[in-house]
Amino acid sequence: MSERISRRKLFGMGAAGVAVAGAGAIAVRGAGGEPAPARAASTSDPVPFYGEHQAGIVTPAQDRLHFVSFDVTTDKKAELAELLQEWTAAAARMTQGQEAGAFGAVGGEPEAPPDDTGEALGLPASGLTLTVGFGGSLFDDRFGLASRRPAALADLPHLPGDALLPEISGGDLCVQACAHDPQVAVHAIRNLARIGFGRVSVRWSQLGFGRTSSTSRAQATPRNLMGFKDGTANLKLEDVALLREQLWVGPDDGSGWMTGGSYLVTRKIRMLVETWDRAPLAEQEQIFGRDKGEGAPLGGKAEFDVIDFDAKGPDGEALIKDDAHVRLAHPSHNGGARLLRRGYNYVDGSDGLGRLDAGLFFIAYQRDPHRQFVAVQRSLAGKDSLNEYIKHVSSGLFACPPGVRDAGDYWGRALFS
Amino acid sequence: MSERISRRKLFGMGAAGVAVAGAGAIAVRGAGGEPAPARAASTSDPVPFYGEHQAGIVTPAQDRLHFVSFDVTTDKKAELAELLQEWTAAAARMTQGQEAGAFGAVGGEPEAPPDDTGEALGLPASGLTLTVGFGGSLFDDRFGLASRRPAALADLPHLPGDALLPEISGGDLCVQACAHDPQVAVHAIRNLARIGFGRVSVRWSQLGFGRTSSTSRAQATPRNLMGFKDGTANLKLEDVALLREQLWVGPDDGSGWMTGGSYLVTRKIRMLVETWDRAPLAEQEQIFGRDKGEGAPLGGKAEFDVIDFDAKGPDGEALIKDDAHVRLAHPSHNGGARLLRRGYNYVDGSDGLGRLDAGLFFIAYQRDPHRQFVAVQRSLAGKDSLNEYIKHVSSGLFACPPGVRDAGDYWGRALFS
Repeated sequence: MSERISRRKLFGMGAAGVAVAGAGAIAVRGAGGEPAPARAASTSDPVPFYGEHQAGIVTPAQDRLHFVSFDVTTDKKAELAELLQEWTAAAARMTQGQEAGAFGAVGGEPEAPPDDTGEALGLPASGLTLTVGFGGSLFDDRFGLASRRPAALADLPHLPGDALLPEISGGDLCVQACAHDPQVAVHAIRNLARIGFGRVSVRWSQLGFGRTSSTSRAQATPRNLMGFKDGTANLKLEDVALLREQLWVGPDDGSGWMTGGSYLVTRKIRMLVETWDRAPLAEQEQIFGRDKGEGAPLGGKAEFDVIDFDAKGPDGEALIKDDAHVRLAHPSHNGGARLLRRGYNYVDGSDGLGRLDAGLFFIAYQRDPHRQFVAVQRSLAGKDSLNEYIKHVSSGLFACPPGVRDAGDYWGRALFS
Repeated sequence: MSERISRRKLFGMGAAGVAVAGAGAIAVRGAGGEPAPARAASTSDPVPFYGEHQAGIVTPAQDRLHFVSFDVTTDKKAELAELLQEWTAAAARMTQGQEAGAFGAVGGEPEAPPDDTGEALGLPASGLTLTVGFGGSLFDDRFGLASRRPAALADLPHLPGDALLPEISGGDLCVQACAHDPQVAVHAIRNLARIGFGRVSVRWSQLGFGRTSSTSRAQATPRNLMGFKDGTANLKLEDVALLREQLWVGPDDGSGWMTGGSYLVTRKIRMLVETWDRAPLAEQEQIFGRDKGEGAPLGGKAEFDVIDFDAKGPDGEALIKDDAHVRLAHPSHNGGARLLRRGYNYVDGSDGLGRLDAGLFFIAYQRDPHRQFVAVQRSLAGKDSLNEYIKHVSSGLFACPPGVRDAGDYWGRALFS
């Protein structure tokens, strides 16, 4: 486990101290050659930044999210590559609890703006991970990258029930910041946006709280804003063979620069919580196909019981209806497709119609979004009885490159070099 | 300290168990007749609900906020009083880590909607406080309350630089939910809104994180999104004599029903963080009148050093400029006015112009907003060099009645009976 260096401890340390902290932060590898999954020992500790895969995918889901999508405003490929190098250096520092730049908010020249905006001074690393993705629009004719666009990054099709708002969808680049302290996540996104001034512009951004999935068996399953446990059947970091099959892009998948990466789908799913809250308990449980208290599949007793889709009640009717969410989303219904979800609940104030503007910011990683997310969502969007209560208002698809190996590497190097 | 009862432990407990939990939750009083300030022992423990004052004012500021303003949609005074009784009962339960209603999300009739929306099942009380206030508009001709409107609740005057949006300002009623877990704060507001269905409608709501003030000497001073420590000179719960003078409404203050209450001013202050981040460190420090690292007043060494407004630099110029924030906001500049602040940082996504929509949701409690907040804000709005970087976009003024004494009492009883 890397040494914990808080921003407060770094006050007054020179470049030598910073270099030591950087060396300490290299990911520890497991004995069998398989990299140990990046994970923090406590909610204040740092998560290793360097590794085969980007942190923030199988990392045990932290409690808070700040997600941002950027439009690239320069049309020079070299400037874009330079930005990714600067971002990588800043991310390597911030994820270890250091300030964004070497001269911080307090150590700089009085006549220059500080390198760091300062609001995380004194806060620990807080499990911060920063995960970068490239949108399909980055592969248009601006940067000469069209031939490098992976087939898996083809635009998502229109799906039944989509009510997408273009101004909060898509984007050339994305950064997912997850941390146990929202101030730390916000600080990281803000400083990356600041470093990008003149080269990128914030397209949309989303805060989230209350992670709605577990990505490790060590985590309890959390609840979404419908009050149900969410993500019981999620892919988890312990499923190493399944992750190779379902999550990580392999060397034979067509785009070499994505080997070790993963595809990210984001969907902002507004929930009409006021309407949901007027539905009877039995109806809510039938819609999900699980009981609300334990999260057990109907007909079962405990959350992780194997789902019996053939179970019938005393009336001879199926306990899990044909349009129950748990049936439609199940791998057996979708050609075996699984997702690694790590979404967050959100409340964006109110909607001007007397209701809370609330729902789920859905985040899912996978090896091929067209075979995985699209299959599941087609199945759900056509029949899911949840549809009466939800609306997809934003969508994003991003290719998240492999991890940064060391201080000489940077996000997307294989694409840009 | 009251016994900790989590929602999970309550599963399957009958009414008797709930009654015991209620009794255990009554505020412990100090030996000298002065009520012990409501405070939680850990971030998961409950804060006592009953007491002379409402919790959530001097309670050590929790980390997360969900604030909501409601319009009352009934015109029947009896229905409004009934709502306040129902809200009080639900708040007494939820602040102790219980579900909103006796039949929870899992113990109810299958054919009825659950009494509780369920997303906080299994989460501890998390220091939740719920604090209610009445807006000036509640005292119009709908409910026959016009003659009970306190002079201190007169509308705030227009202040220089105000750019207020009416749709996110004002309101008949407000509820401030503070907790260490945002899911718990959001759950509480949502369930109060749900109980109010048909009688109130959400007017606006605001989430916040990273409290920007301490309300106890036991808390470190946090930082705002300008990267500076904020609220160093805040009133704190240990200042018992000052609180009587500056915070709590006294029996001779004119409106008997407000004795033991306090007036709440909210201001949503958008910060142009991208512009701020381009200002040199020395300029940022001159604008605040404090150094960024320690938070010491310029000319001093440590955060809590007494401010020397006459200190001069080697060039003979005042170290703390005439328009420095710390000078203009100081009690000596404003007829001795002090505030108990407990604001939160916010990020509401982006603004469509490539910038984060971020800033401070300012919350201040006081005995008389016209002698206190208005005096300070007039002083700041006229000269403060911060004004170039901030914009007040929302404003609220609410009369927060005294605390609920016991299970037979309710929020605002002295006003409605």
